[in-house]
Amino acid sequence: VILGLDIGGANTKAASSDGRFTYSAYLPLWRGVDLEGMLGDIRQRAGAVDAIGVTITGELADCYASKNEGIGHITAAVKRIFPEAVFYGSDGRFHPYGDDHRLLSAANWSASARHIGTIHKNILFIDVGSTTSDVIPVVDSVPEAGLTDFERLSRGELVYAGALRTNVAALLRTVTLGDRTVRTSSELFAITADVNLLLGHIGGEDYTCDAPDGGGKGLDGAARRLARVVCCDLEELPMDDVMEVARQAYRRQVDDLKEGIGLVAGRYGLGRAIVCGSGDFIAVDALREIGMPFSKVAGVFGERVSRVFPAYAVARLLSIKE
Amino acid sequence: VILGLDIGGANTKAASSDGRFTYSAYLPLWRGVDLEGMLGDIRQRAGAVDAIGVTITGELADCYASKNEGIGHITAAVKRIFPEAVFYGSDGRFHPYGDDHRLLSAANWSASARHIGTIHKNILFIDVGSTTSDVIPVVDSVPEAGLTDFERLSRGELVYAGALRTNVAALLRTVTLGDRTVRTSSELFAITADVNLLLGHIGGEDYTCDAPDGGGKGLDGAARRLARVVCCDLEELPMDDVMEVARQAYRRQVDDLKEGIGLVAGRYGLGRAIVCGSGDFIAVDALREIGMPFSKVAGVFGERVSRVFPAYAVARLLSIKE
Repeated sequence: VILGLDIGGANTKAASSDGRFTYSAYLPLWRGVDLEGMLGDIRQRAGAVDAIGVTITGELADCYASKNEGIGHITAAVKRIFPEAVFYGSDGRFHPYGDDHRLLSAANWSASARHIGTIHKNILFIDVGSTTSDVIPVVDSVPEAGLTDFERLSRGELVYAGALRTNVAALLRTVTLGDRTVRTSSELFAITADVNLLLGHIGGEDYTCDAPDGGGKGLDGAARRLARVVCCDLEELPMDDVMEVARQAYRRQVDDLKEGIGLVAGRYGLGRAIVCGSGDFIAVDALREIGMPFSKVAGVFGERVSRVFPAYAVARLLSIKE
Repeated sequence: VILGLDIGGANTKAASSDGRFTYSAYLPLWRGVDLEGMLGDIRQRAGAVDAIGVTITGELADCYASKNEGIGHITAAVKRIFPEAVFYGSDGRFHPYGDDHRLLSAANWSASARHIGTIHKNILFIDVGSTTSDVIPVVDSVPEAGLTDFERLSRGELVYAGALRTNVAALLRTVTLGDRTVRTSSELFAITADVNLLLGHIGGEDYTCDAPDGGGKGLDGAARRLARVVCCDLEELPMDDVMEVARQAYRRQVDDLKEGIGLVAGRYGLGRAIVCGSGDFIAVDALREIGMPFSKVAGVFGERVSRVFPAYAVARLLSIKE
């Protein structure tokens, strides 16, 4: 068995190269959680492992003073549980050690897009996760995106909003309700998980991150949190207006993603896309509105693999190399 | 001695009606902190108290499912420590019980503006605190603002951004660095305390809230947090660019406040302002740019009173009534 691991700031994912084993857990690194314990659990669940490839994005978590410190901490934890692990770099190669932190930082999209490049020569690869959206141009089978998060943020290749964890206040500075423009609160009162739950895009079992108020993850809790975005409780704000806050937050997120897609597709003349991730429905809405044809990783590899695609991709890339 | 208390979601403040006693502490209610313990501490520090007036805004904290629950919890805690306490309502009256939660919600600006109304007949009263900015029209000595936070958000009378706690991601969706437009991360990576510390608007002793990463509150920590807003560490982002992120966040906050001031002043034909709060420097910058003459509460009542003005105002209002 060849195993792939994708260690993000909020989620850790794993998959085997045959796609039979997949695993995803909410593991917020900035809370000082037990990464080694989680990796030990994955080792047990996966059974005998012949090789293991790892991608890392969790070095940006603000428990680390620098990316160097983050990569050092994460690679050391991996090595203690999986001494045989190799780390995927944005140069498209595997590295046995974690010493070149620039190469190993934020490389998960690179693994995904390189694997997509083995199937599609020229395509726009879009991965919408819980926290961020990657919009990666695959040109002549090679990912052509900027090599740092900063580069990608400035090129439309990283839209830092996802299907679950994004603060609604970072999407909406005002909401229009009837004929009124209402400023929003700048607190972390509601997130896109609340938006997507209320709009029926996800089910309760998909709300895998914490609720901002630590409260219930049902429709009632989501509505209460969205009302707070305009400083209301559910006694004050009619449900129609709560839904309107949700619709406008979703609208903004789709528009932001459309802007990224337009920039990146235009830059490389790409006319087709392939989408994956737990938030692929957002990419689907954006692409339908743009009128760009697309396929879904979930349609090709199944829903489970789509949700942990970088982990699956790094396992596939390693299995080809081995 | 007549005491005033202002219980917000993030800070609890107290002052005596003669201004000799002032007290302010960061007490984030949503963390399940010991409000009663804090009130007991204030009771001890203040010495013998003849009467006590209370304003409340902490009912919006997301540890409470509704404002009713918040007001109920806070008034009960107050009554256990100060059985003689009375609560200031947005109707301008004192109430012995916490049963009418709508009347007691978000009434601190009302106390401040009513006290200002005893000195100035027609004036714009602006209080910029750690978290929010109140822009209250005082017309014929009466505060004319909307009675709920929602009303005020839609009328420019509440701009939900302050000098310390505001998420930079809620101010800036993009940053311009050189000739590049860079999207920001939607995480809670940096706050206005970081912005104002780096720009020299506040000193380290004023950084009274938590740092988002739990890290140091010096210039180095602030710079590191602001770099993270564009997914960088300090190895990647030059200090000039870090400062540029700070300047653009501050610029946005001043512009938002100017918009609120313009709306409210225009609505009532007000041509003068009086400013208070720990973030009064933001209001001063906004008013200078608009060209509206103003005075500072700190100049009249002293810096300490300016920072706890709602507490002082409710003590003054109660002393007049007694």
